[in-house]
Order: sequence, then C-alpha cells, then structure tokens
Amino acid sequence: MTENQNHLYSIYSPEDLKKLSVSELPELCQELRDFIVKSLSENPGHLAASLGTVELTVALHYSLNTPYDRIVWDVGHQAYSHKILTGRREQFHTNRKQGGLSGFPHPDESPYDSFVAGHASNSISAALGMAIAAKRKDEKRVVTAVIGDGAMSGGLAYEGLNNTVEYDNDLLIIINDNNLAIDKNVGGFHRSMARITTSRHYNNLRWYVYRQLKKMGLMNDARKNRILRFGKSLKKLFSRSTTIFDGLDIRYFGPVDGHDVKNLVRVLNTIKNMRGPKALHICTTKGKGYEPAEKNATDFHAPGKFNIATGERQHDINDGSQPIKFQDVFGHTLVELAAKNDKIVAITPAMPSGCGLNIMKEQFPDRVYDVGIAEGHAVTFSAGLAKEGLIPFCNIYSSFAQRAYDNIIHDIAIARLPVVLCLDRAGLVGEDGVTHQGAFDIAALRCIPNLTIAAPIDEVELRDMMYTAQLKADRPFVIRYPRGKGYVVNWKKEMKEIAIGKGVKLHEGKDIAIASIGPITKTALSIAEAFAKEEGMPSVAVYNFRFVKPLDEELIEEIGKNFKKIITIENACVKGGFGTAVMEALQEKGYHLQWKAMGLPDRFIEHANVAQQHTDCGIDEASIRQSILEF
Amino acid sequence: MTENQNHLYSIYSPEDLKKLSVSELPELCQELRDFIVKSLSENPGHLAASLGTVELTVALHYSLNTPYDRIVWDVGHQAYSHKILTGRREQFHTNRKQGGLSGFPHPDESPYDSFVAGHASNSISAALGMAIAAKRKDEKRVVTAVIGDGAMSGGLAYEGLNNTVEYDNDLLIIINDNNLAIDKNVGGFHRSMARITTSRHYNNLRWYVYRQLKKMGLMNDARKNRILRFGKSLKKLFSRSTTIFDGLDIRYFGPVDGHDVKNLVRVLNTIKNMRGPKALHICTTKGKGYEPAEKNATDFHAPGKFNIATGERQHDINDGSQPIKFQDVFGHTLVELAAKNDKIVAITPAMPSGCGLNIMKEQFPDRVYDVGIAEGHAVTFSAGLAKEGLIPFCNIYSSFAQRAYDNIIHDIAIARLPVVLCLDRAGLVGEDGVTHQGAFDIAALRCIPNLTIAAPIDEVELRDMMYTAQLKADRPFVIRYPRGKGYVVNWKKEMKEIAIGKGVKLHEGKDIAIASIGPITKTALSIAEAFAKEEGMPSVAVYNFRFVKPLDEELIEEIGKNFKKIITIENACVKGGFGTAVMEALQEKGYHLQWKAMGLPDRFIEHANVAQQHTDCGIDEASIRQSILEF
Repeated sequence: MTENQNHLYSIYSPEDLKKLSVSELPELCQELRDFIVKSLSENPGHLAASLGTVELTVALHYSLNTPYDRIVWDVGHQAYSHKILTGRREQFHTNRKQGGLSGFPHPDESPYDSFVAGHASNSISAALGMAIAAKRKDEKRVVTAVIGDGAMSGGLAYEGLNNTVEYDNDLLIIINDNNLAIDKNVGGFHRSMARITTSRHYNNLRWYVYRQLKKMGLMNDARKNRILRFGKSLKKLFSRSTTIFDGLDIRYFGPVDGHDVKNLVRVLNTIKNMRGPKALHICTTKGKGYEPAEKNATDFHAPGKFNIATGERQHDINDGSQPIKFQDVFGHTLVELAAKNDKIVAITPAMPSGCGLNIMKEQFPDRVYDVGIAEGHAVTFSAGLAKEGLIPFCNIYSSFAQRAYDNIIHDIAIARLPVVLCLDRAGLVGEDGVTHQGAFDIAALRCIPNLTIAAPIDEVELRDMMYTAQLKADRPFVIRYPRGKGYVVNWKKEMKEIAIGKGVKLHEGKDIAIASIGPITKTALSIAEAFAKEEGMPSVAVYNFRFVKPLDEELIEEIGKNFKKIITIENACVKGGFGTAVMEALQEKGYHLQWKAMGLPDRFIEHANVAQQHTDCGIDEASIRQSILEF
Repeated sequence: MTENQNHLYSIYSPEDLKKLSVSELPELCQELRDFIVKSLSENPGHLAASLGTVELTVALHYSLNTPYDRIVWDVGHQAYSHKILTGRREQFHTNRKQGGLSGFPHPDESPYDSFVAGHASNSISAALGMAIAAKRKDEKRVVTAVIGDGAMSGGLAYEGLNNTVEYDNDLLIIINDNNLAIDKNVGGFHRSMARITTSRHYNNLRWYVYRQLKKMGLMNDARKNRILRFGKSLKKLFSRSTTIFDGLDIRYFGPVDGHDVKNLVRVLNTIKNMRGPKALHICTTKGKGYEPAEKNATDFHAPGKFNIATGERQHDINDGSQPIKFQDVFGHTLVELAAKNDKIVAITPAMPSGCGLNIMKEQFPDRVYDVGIAEGHAVTFSAGLAKEGLIPFCNIYSSFAQRAYDNIIHDIAIARLPVVLCLDRAGLVGEDGVTHQGAFDIAALRCIPNLTIAAPIDEVELRDMMYTAQLKADRPFVIRYPRGKGYVVNWKKEMKEIAIGKGVKLHEGKDIAIASIGPITKTALSIAEAFAKEEGMPSVAVYNFRFVKPLDEELIEEIGKNFKKIITIENACVKGGFGTAVMEALQEKGYHLQWKAMGLPDRFIEHANVAQQHTDCGIDEASIRQSILEF
C-alpha cells in the first residue's frame, strides 16, 4: 500500500467516500483503477468495461445517497468499482470464486446491488418500476439505470425506454457510450433523403396528410395515446422535425466526458433531482487508463490473468496434445461444412468470439451475421433465412436463448423451419454464476412440438450432429453443448450422419441402466468401466441417448425389458429434463422401473469453478459413483 | 350477388386481380369491404383491422408478383383481404372453424402466407431474413413486412428495424399506422428542451464532445460499427440533427393515405424495386368504410356476430343466472383486493379489455399500467415495482408470456421478487388456434427455482389464490387460468387463504387415483361421481392439486400408498407438465405406479372451438371416461 492509495483504503462505504473533497476524486479514481488492474491481473474477471466506469461510479456514489438512492447496473461487467466502494474491497479478491463475491450485482450480496444484472438490456424496465414505486410511495429517492450502448440494441431496452414517459416518474437513465463511431453511411442516406425531399409530389402528399393527422389527433382517446407511443414517436421522426427523445418526452443531457469525475459530480448534482424522466449521455473508453486494455478492449473484456507491466496475457499453452474448446471445434467444423454447402450461414447475437464464429468470419466474412445483443431477433431472422432455403446455424448461449423462447416456438417450430439452433454454454458454466447457467434449455424446449434436440457426448459427436443437421435440413434442429475444453485431441475426424433419435449403448451391464446425454455420459462410462474391474461392484449398463427428442424408443424398450433400476444423468435441471423424458417414455411403454434422476437441483447455482459446481450439484464422478452404490 | 360485385367474384388469385384496370380497383375495394362485413357479421372474426387494410392488400397484390414476391403480415388480423384475394374467397365462411381457414396467415395453408403471424412484432426480423436470403440467392423478389403501429412497441420489431441496415437487402417495410394522435406533451417537452439548449454550458460541452466524436469516428473498426448501431443512432438523435430512420439508413416514404388504392399502387410501383431497405408509412383508419366499426374500433376489433344495418352486436344475454367469464372475475376480484391493499398495482401488455383489467382501470385508473405490446418489459417492470415493495399483478396471456421467459427467470425468480404473474388463456383457447394455445406454461415454468405455480379449479379458487398471493407477497406467484366462461354463478364468496402447495381430495376411490389441476378437474370429478352411482364401474379418487409447484407431498404420499394406478389430467402439454411433476414426485418417494398422462399431445393444436379441441386432444368428458375404463 503506497501513500497515494490512502483514499481508497479508507473507504468502507459510500459514507467514507463522501468525506473526500471533489478535488480528491481524480486521485481516488486512479487508485481504484490501479486496484482493479492489479486484482484482475491475478484473479481473472471483466476488466475493460470496469475500467470504463471508474469515474461514473465514483461520481454516482459521491452525488447520490446510496443505497437509499438506487443504481441499476445493466450487465454487471461495469460494476466492479461499485462493489469495491460499497464495502466489498477487502473481499474483492474472492470475485467470482466459490463462496466469494458474485461477478455481477446480486441483491442477495449487498443492499447496494439493487437488481440482478447478468443478462443485458433489463435495467431501464427494472429501474422504471422502481422509480414509479418510489413515486407512488412518495419516497424522494433517485433511481438511475446505467446502460451501455451495446445493451441498447436489445429490444427490452427499447421497450423500457418507450415506456419511460408513460407514467409519472423521475428516472435517470445514464447511457454509457463507449463506441464513438460515427456512421459512415450518413452521407449516402442524406443524398437519398435529399432526392425524396426534393420530389414535389412526396412533399405535397406528406404535408397534406400531416395536416390531416393534426386535425384527427384532437380526437384521439387516452387509451390509444398510451398504448401506441412508439407509433407516434416514429411519426414525429418521419416528419424530421424532432428527435427520438423528443418523441419520447425524455430530457436529454450530454454527451459529457465520462472520465471527468469532477464534472460528472457537478452534472449529477444538477440533474439528479429534476422532475420527470431524463437521459444523461456519457462517453467513455473501454479499458480506460490501462493502455493494453485501451488498445484492445475486446481481448481485455475478460483477459484472464495478465502481466500488468507488459500487458501480456497468460495463455494456456496447447501444443496440440490437449483437446481444444468445444467452441473452437464448432467454429472450425462450421467452416468445413460451409465450404461444401453454400446454403449454410451463421448467426450470433453479439458473441462471435465467445462461440467460435470468429473462425467462420475469417473464412466467410459475408456468411456470418452478428446481429448485436438481440437474441429474439437472431432466432426470427434465422427463421426468415431458413424459410427461403438457406441453412442458418444460429448460435446462442443457452441462458441467453431464454430470451428467444417464443421465437423458437412461434417463428421456428410451428412452421418446422430448418434452423440449426446451437446452444453454447449448456449446463454449468462456472464463474459467471447464477444468471449464466445453461440449466433450463432441455426442460423448456422438449415440450415444443416439431423440435429435434440433440446433445453430443464429445467434440466428434458435435461434428457429426452439425453434419447431420445440415444434410437434409428438413426440420428445426437444436444442439446443446458445454462451455470450454473438450475431450478428444484428434477431433478432426471425417464427419458421418447420425440417425435422428438414435442413441447407442456404450457399456454392457446387468444391475443398473444409466441413461445419459452430453459429456457427463463419459463420467458414467468411466465409473461403469471401473466397476467392471472391481470385485463386488454393480454391473452398470451405460446408454448415450444423444437425442432428448425424439427419444430412442428401442433403447427405452431394451432398458424397460432388462432392468429394474435406472439412473438418468444430465448436466441440466432435473425437473422436466432428459431424465424425465426417459421416465415418461418408460411409463408409456408400461415399464415401471425404480428411477434415480441426477442433474441440476431445483435451485439457482451460484458462481464457483465448474468442478466445484458439479460437486455442489452431486454430478461429479465421486458423487455419481456414490449414488450408484447407494441405489 | 349484385352486378357491382362482379370484380370480386371473378378473382380466384392475384393473377385475376391484375386483369382489372387501376381505375376499377376502388370498386373492388368496396366489394371486398362489403364481403368482409357480411361474412364477419355471420361468422365472427377480426373486423376492424381487416377493414383498415383493404386498399393496401389490393395494391400489394396488384403491384407485386405474389407468391414469388413475399408479403409478411405482422399479426394476421390484418390479412383477411389477403386470404380472400389469394384463392380462399369461397372458403372464407370457414374462417377460424375446425378444418377451415386459420384466422391468421399460416404457411401450411397457402403459399401466399409466407410466415406465421399470430404474435405481434415478428415481421421485420422474419422478412429481413427472407430479403437477405433472396439477395444471397440472387433472386430479385420483393420482400415486404406489413406492420401496424401497435406492433411497433414490441422490442422484437425494434431489434429487427435496428438490424435492417446492417446487411445488403432490399426489404420494404410498410408501417400501417392507424393511430393518428399527435402527442399532447410535445409542447412541454419543447419547453424543457429550450431550457437545455439555451444553457451555454451544455451547448458548449455538447459541441466540444461532438467534435471529438467525429474525429474518433474515423478510427472505428468494422466490428463496432456493426454491433452497436443503436448506440450510434441514439447519438445522432441526441444531436437533434437527424431522424431515427436517418440513423438507421432506411429510406423513408410517406405518410401516404392508406385508403387511396390508386395512389398506393403508384407508390408501390415506384419504390418496390429500389435498392436498399426502405419504409413506407401509410395512414389508415381501423374499421374503415363500416361506420359502426370506424366509430368504435375497439369494440369492433373482434365484435362477434352483428347486425350489418344497425351495427348492433349480438351479445350473450346473462341475467345473472349464468356464470361470467374468468376474466371478469379476475377484474372484479382485483378491484376488491386493491381497495383493501394499497400496494397492489396491475400491469398488462396491451390487453386491458381482454384480461379484465379494464374493470380495475375504471375504479383505480392510476393503478393500472398498460405498457403496450411489450411482454418482456411488462414482467421486468413488474419486478422493479415489486423490488420496491409494491404488489404487481402482471397479467399476460399464457402464449404471449413465452415472450417473457427470460424475464421471469432472470428478473423475478433469481431474486424471488413477489410479482403475481397471472397467466390468462392458459390451456386450449379455441378459434385463435395454433399460435394462441396456452400449452407450454407449466412445462416451461415448473423447472424454474423459487416459483410458486397455481391453477384454480374454478372462479372461487381463482379468487382465493389471488387473495393468497397478495397476503404475504413474499414470493413470485404464478396463477394460470383459462379463457372464457367460468362455472360458478355465485362466485363472489368471501376470499380465504389457501395453504401454499396444498391440494385437496374431492372424491374418494379405491381403484384409480386421478391427480389433476385447473377446471378440467371438474370433468374428472363428474366422471368419478357418475361411476360411483353405476354398477361395475371403477372406484375413482379425484385429487385437485391446486399447485404444480410446490407439489403437495402429503397427497403424493397418500396416492403412492393407496393406489397402483394413477391418471393425471391437465389442460396443458403432457410432456414435462403437471402429470410429469406428479410422476417425478411419486418416483422420488419410491412409489412405482402405473401412470396414464392426459393432456395436450406433442403437436400444435389447430383452430376449432374449445370443445372440439378438447375432443381432438382426448380431454373431453367422453374421452376421459373411456380412458379410465380402458386403464
């Protein structure tokens, strides 16, 4: 601890922060930044976004009266400074670790964390509810939503924004804008606009109808007014006379420099108690103040461990003797398939690097559609592509695909459109914790008619499933697979078709049948193999079902006929999941086995590493082994 | 058939339509309008919206080359003229009837119906996919999305719009604007805007940063450009120099009169082949051309049967001797509760009349929040209200709540916020058909931790559940109940608390246990009672579980101990549903009963009346009786 760290180390709550003078705040920001860089260099986390919001966070807690005043962070990546200033500095080294701090704001963790913030774009809606509640209860608190420009591409953010002016509230929306690009196409559009506006016909028509609108506007009833606000704001925009915030009646302030903490305090003090909804637009730099991160914000989004002095990131060295990630196999495989099948295109909602589609992008840049944070659109857009004969591989993280549930039902399944929906990060995901677990996909999707749902045991089977999905491309095809490293070094085998709905027996056994799906089947297999070599151990048959839907009827028959006991294992919630599907099918065929279901329990699973989470859920090797023996 | 109906009766496809001269089109429109009014006066359907789009539909099929060119209708209410002109005039009397035409566009029904259109706001995303596919395949087709201004409040529409300029496509978006109101708050906003813009400080700051932005814009890389478009368009709007369509690089045409068919043809011919995405803004009147509907578009949205001459709607007469609708009971009950508990507020995404909240609105206008078509926002907004101590009753139709699946998980369940989520129209819904069935809610929701999920057997139990949900208000509480008439004339009984997770035995029996939930339990009960009076019939116990989650462990114990056979019955999909929950629980306790699951099968259920659909799914009284006997 050096002398100029005195400020930060004296702060245990925003009360302490307020003891500083405004002129001391820039120093505090520097200390905070150093603290975050040092901490994250040793204990990986989300760096670049957190560095971008140092000054904003200091200014907010300095100006507002938290936790009475509420800050709703949109996507918790931004909120590390917030955690450090609100009594969690000394625990910050436990960030994202089992039993430690959550990587995201979490109301169970602190009264300063006013809302769950793992999925983007929810802050405006939630904060609007809180602001209106304050108004109703006559509590004079400030409620603010802090949302990045990336999260603004989500439809939910728009729905919230669109509603902000409907009711009496004093919400403060802070738009943290770290993308400073000015659209290069403006010129072209202006030219086309000029063409239209110089057409006398259109002008006359427009003004004629506009005058009519005005007249009829006098007759509109209150109900229409409320429901159809966006239509109106659009209309106003059409008329080119006003802005979207004009249309929405939101006061706009900015843009202001998001790294000038003294000015931020001044601006916040000025506007925080103003009546009515208002938006403050601040401009920040991702990775601000740490040069390697400023230069490469994407790599330093979540850089892992790194050397502070050099900015060198600590990579796992893989000389080819280690399996690579499922994500990389996905990317390379899609390139292989796309090279042979020109109908294949790929869609991702803002996760090209995370899901491996950056690999495809390098090879076929015009066949990858990154639609921004907009999962619902990603799916419906894919449906449109499929409708016209293309084969879209739409890759979404399992937990984010919850955003597209209706799109899967309404836009894909009803018309049986051949979208290949690739659910990445299915099952337990580790440090990102409770909001990011891919727990519910099987239970939520298997009730939807017309879907085929598959889960590969390893990378080779993932490839075969991808190959199969595009071969006939005659149906919606869901493939779920986990985050992280695979199991097979020589994964690049020739791909082969897998019969839809056909599983496979991996191990013979007499006493107990294990029905499983996904890589966790490998754990079951290794236990069964070990038992076979030990004296007095049960004889365990292992079935890799491969498909949750349709379920392999022959395997169900075989198990029903030959076993009295069945264990189902999956890396997904047990309620309504794969195991339940097996049990439903056995019952339907009149087999009444003793059943033990293993998988994720009926509670949200907090952050920890993946192995710890498996143990927590009783689906690590030792627990499964023990369960089999007890059963 | 009168002489001036000659045009319409000669049209069996858009080919026939094209044989008319432009000057004959207004007559055709009149014929079409008369046809629709006459047809719907006898066979109920969606009148007002369809009358509003007569000219647009004629103009589209006249100008475009359908079905090679694609029309994607957003919400099928608009599409009756489309059906009539595309070879389905002679079947139109079967609209919404079993085996007849669907009330919505349905690709299985006709090649002219290019996309499923039961849920609002999906048209731009789907049509964008189709337009890009056309481009990739070098097919010169016109792809157009027709979206009403109401549907524009949905976040999906925004996500689609936001993405329209990202890639090479020639999409034509037609905004059918039938709300002509001009926002009365503009004046106030303009004043506040004037205040800001006259502040020299803000102006200087803004322009200083704006210039910086411009400079830095030169450095932005392609990736940021693509992902973060909305941020940019916002920014431009902030600067007050441009419009949202400017920001999005979409050419804008209009507004034009949507009832001037000749001009519409001319405009469409002019713009349809222009390169790049473009928006045509047309203004229409709901109910156009039929005076009663023009005067009262809300009542004539779906008026039921009516007298053409007088506009008198044929109401069911209820002198108090008939049960009223669940929706009315919901509305009246919420008023009762709200009168005593001032924390209660109500939220609806654009369905106040449909769900009964109009009743609450009359009594407590400032405690009902109609947020427009925005289901995700409705739920997250409710979560924000609940977070601050209010008790929000958020009412969403079951099938539309699929739109809010992630919001329920991420924004309500993780933090256990006490939102009362009322799922109206759960189960089979009748004529609206495949897109509107409330089939998946139980299966999709019961895997989510922290939720309480209830389903009342009748209106009295609905009231008790609503009462219970707000009594402690210490958890998320889901109540699902069906569309339409209830069962109890004297439903207004004093409300009482129901123990959470406690069911009740309704009928004693020895041979078979029936576990059920919701009103269909009444069917089971009446069969059991009938059997008890007949010789040689099985003795059937009937259990009303009331709660899907938590499940009544004592009843499970009782059934497990005393029965070898169980039938589960629910008005929801069987896969993963209530019956499965019962079976999971029995198995967990070590009971291995013979199980028959009754409910909605694993396929989409088409339009018909509710009774026909029950028969189709084998959950009508006769089928259930038969199933029990066979079992």
